Amino acid sequence: MIMSRIEAPRDADDAAAAVDAATAVTGTLVDRLLAGLPSGSVLTDPDVTASYANDMASFCPAGAPAVVVLPRTVEDVQHVMRTATELRVPVVPQGARTGLSGAANATDGCVVLSLTRMDRILEINPVDRVAVVEPGVVNATLSRAVNEHGLYYPPDPSSWETCTIGGNIGTASGGLCCVKYGVTAEYVLGLDVVLADGRLMTTGRRTAKGVAGYDLTRLFVGSEGSLGIVVRAVLALRPEPPEQLVLAAEFASATAACDAICRIMKTEGREALPRKGGGGRREGGHVPSLLELMDRTTVKAVNDLAHMGLPESTEALLLAAFDTADPAADLAAVGALCEAAGATRVVPADDAAESELLLQARRLSLTALEAVKGTTMIDDVCVPRSRLGDMLEGIERVAAKYGLTIGVCAHAGDGNTHPTVCFDAQDPDESRRARESFDEIMALGLELGGTITGEHGVGVLKKEWLAREIGPVGLEMQRAIKQAFDPLDILNPGKLF
Amino acid sequence: MIMSRIEAPRDADDAAAAVDAATAVTGTLVDRLLAGLPSGSVLTDPDVTASYANDMASFCPAGAPAVVVLPRTVEDVQHVMRTATELRVPVVPQGARTGLSGAANATDGCVVLSLTRMDRILEINPVDRVAVVEPGVVNATLSRAVNEHGLYYPPDPSSWETCTIGGNIGTASGGLCCVKYGVTAEYVLGLDVVLADGRLMTTGRRTAKGVAGYDLTRLFVGSEGSLGIVVRAVLALRPEPPEQLVLAAEFASATAACDAICRIMKTEGREALPRKGGGGRREGGHVPSLLELMDRTTVKAVNDLAHMGLPESTEALLLAAFDTADPAADLAAVGALCEAAGATRVVPADDAAESELLLQARRLSLTALEAVKGTTMIDDVCVPRSRLGDMLEGIERVAAKYGLTIGVCAHAGDGNTHPTVCFDAQDPDESRRARESFDEIMALGLELGGTITGEHGVGVLKKEWLAREIGPVGLEMQRAIKQAFDPLDILNPGKLF
Repeated sequence: MIMSRIEAPRDADDAAAAVDAATAVTGTLVDRLLAGLPSGSVLTDPDVTASYANDMASFCPAGAPAVVVLPRTVEDVQHVMRTATELRVPVVPQGARTGLSGAANATDGCVVLSLTRMDRILEINPVDRVAVVEPGVVNATLSRAVNEHGLYYPPDPSSWETCTIGGNIGTASGGLCCVKYGVTAEYVLGLDVVLADGRLMTTGRRTAKGVAGYDLTRLFVGSEGSLGIVVRAVLALRPEPPEQLVLAAEFASATAACDAICRIMKTEGREALPRKGGGGRREGGHVPSLLELMDRTTVKAVNDLAHMGLPESTEALLLAAFDTADPAADLAAVGALCEAAGATRVVPADDAAESELLLQARRLSLTALEAVKGTTMIDDVCVPRSRLGDMLEGIERVAAKYGLTIGVCAHAGDGNTHPTVCFDAQDPDESRRARESFDEIMALGLELGGTITGEHGVGVLKKEWLAREIGPVGLEMQRAIKQAFDPLDILNPGKLF
Repeated sequence: MIMSRIEAPRDADDAAAAVDAATAVTGTLVDRLLAGLPSGSVLTDPDVTASYANDMASFCPAGAPAVVVLPRTVEDVQHVMRTATELRVPVVPQGARTGLSGAANATDGCVVLSLTRMDRILEINPVDRVAVVEPGVVNATLSRAVNEHGLYYPPDPSSWETCTIGGNIGTASGGLCCVKYGVTAEYVLGLDVVLADGRLMTTGRRTAKGVAGYDLTRLFVGSEGSLGIVVRAVLALRPEPPEQLVLAAEFASATAACDAICRIMKTEGREALPRKGGGGRREGGHVPSLLELMDRTTVKAVNDLAHMGLPESTEALLLAAFDTADPAADLAAVGALCEAAGATRVVPADDAAESELLLQARRLSLTALEAVKGTTMIDDVCVPRSRLGDMLEGIERVAAKYGLTIGVCAHAGDGNTHPTVCFDAQDPDESRRARESFDEIMALGLELGGTITGEHGVGVLKKEWLAREIGPVGLEMQRAIKQAFDPLDILNPGKLF
């Protein structure tokens, strides 16, 4: 029996008995864990364990962990999972807890399995273009280490300075570079995974290609720790691209900015070139390394926070970047497309330093919006990029309907919007309206052929919505997979479904 | 009861009874199928159905289909699967049957479900950069259709003029362009799948990003029709790149050619450039759009077949291509690296036409090797590219040990070799040696940290080897997934496992 399954006590005696029972269970659990782990890696002080209850989705419900374990080796993790299986105790894996959906939130009486101490880069191979890492390696640490070899690990969530590769794999993280380089899933070649019962399984490969059996690697990416514990990853690397140059374009409406995005990404928009072997050949469309959008609310919030002097008169600020052989030429072409779409001002950065400043403004967006009203709910709806204009219009309507401030920053090239509801969590009515507007935005995303989550994941926050997006047959098959890997439902239970 | 499960008859009476029983079962099956399908889409003539027994792995065992169905609609496919579930009859899905592992081979008494008539391109969207297609669309048809919009669908297996997208998805096909553009899996965003019991499930999305639940889309890619029938796919497209230019480099040994490949792909080999914002910055390594190798046996076979005038004195011919903004400059840099690795001759193509000729030679390799002795067994071992030299040396040793001709062509940039055993199928001893050498090459690939299949799949040919590669725990979990999707084991049974 585990704490979370103890029924609610009906009177004071029952309550005392329940606490005693829970304490006894925790005692047994801790003893068993300590039998196979160094004492320094098992934390039981309730003040300490409570500090591991949440990821960044602070408004999502979270329980009280019974114990926090900080393994250093694969064998440590295996011992934890064997113990958890034996005692039927839920295990919640955690990285840096920078997630935004509550996927790393504790459940009552669980073992929090924090993988932050398994933080070794085991190998970087510049011929095979792979890195082999433990899950606790921080994204920025890996990124810088591979840069030293002229290599590039693209996935760059906003939290890249602190988030871990294990967390990135668990949530299938995206970032700013996805429009050109794709998401975390595209860079995971193989995994070592500790299964619910403590057995070790290896998936995938370290070769550039491979199709031996079902792709279990990809099944684990984005599974939010619900199928097994990732203890080692083989990651694909790319050669480091040239430095990118950024252009900022101001628009008098979000619609005009979205029109510019469509013009930039629409491949037919470019001229047909004569084909060398005769006949016509169309030149391919633009491939920006970044295509981001900030609305007026976001721009103002960033200025208020960091005094960056962004243009507050603009309704939508578009940032486009190229890391090609001749980025200035690409920026000129894209600048012309922005003007054709009605941009009121187009400013290409002169150099990498100026470009970096613009990106800093973009990266500050969520922090800045948080400062507006104290609390935010960050949505993550992704729509086909041709529907981005409809999405932004719809968000404006929702904000007006509920009388709320909703700032939008977006990975616009991907159609991935982060409508951010700013509200006062002390005000129950505003909190209710915030939640309702948040849901209405997801419904709109689905209506437009999109998804409820482009890169943040489902966690606790969106589990009712997952069912709505994937439908009953999809949900049944997803549950069947969960059942196959975790028949006792001890791996991060209550998340996703 | 199905034909394949009828026990072997013990005497003449039993045999006659068994045939009668089988005929009765087939009669019922055909009646049920015809109750929901147009008569023209159900083929029962044994001469006709027998012609659907095999894919291109002609040496793999294949059974006799009871019936061949050629559906035109999703509803047709659902009717077939409902009928198959009801009668417990195995269903073998097929595309153009260009596969090389027997994954599309019939089993006795099965329904062959040929998806070639579901061949509509439903949508090409140049803003969203997606195509929506039915499974029977031929790869070349799609590739040319998207080219008209300035778009590019990269996956290009050698059979691209005839193979279908459904088959490409089933086998997770690769091709020549993978070293830069990746494999089929990277281009499948979402699927409509008919499950074993006839229900329709939608996976994935049509957005650029999305992480709602487990990645069932990727689970289906490469599943060889064993989890469900793909009836619609949303594919990602890229802007068409500039035309590629090809360079040919001759080497006096395979080892020297592999050294050149490592130099080309090793990112550290390039100079550090001054970073604009100060400090040093390394320029990223080369990204060829193609990096292929043909050994002396293959070159000679191609010359014998097509009189192409390739240099027969070379031990290894390397082809490298770039589709960058300045391909001539990239070819010059790569040519210099080849010379540093000991190339005896380096010839960059002057233009696209000359480049295309070199690629034609490469594409003819397997056909040409087939002509050497009448029959071939084409292996598909992929190793980390740093181990390619060891792999090629090992293959030479195996060829000498068994007294066989083994030609090697390879997607060398990926480390993906196709050692092709040329043998006389009428000679039992040579056939036995061919099979043994084939297996020894796979064992070598695993020893070198590689995989038994880079892009051809497991099918019938390599199912014993799959278990060896992924180990007992991996195999158990793969089987658990199969069980979750196909509890009656009617979807392409006997393949993969």
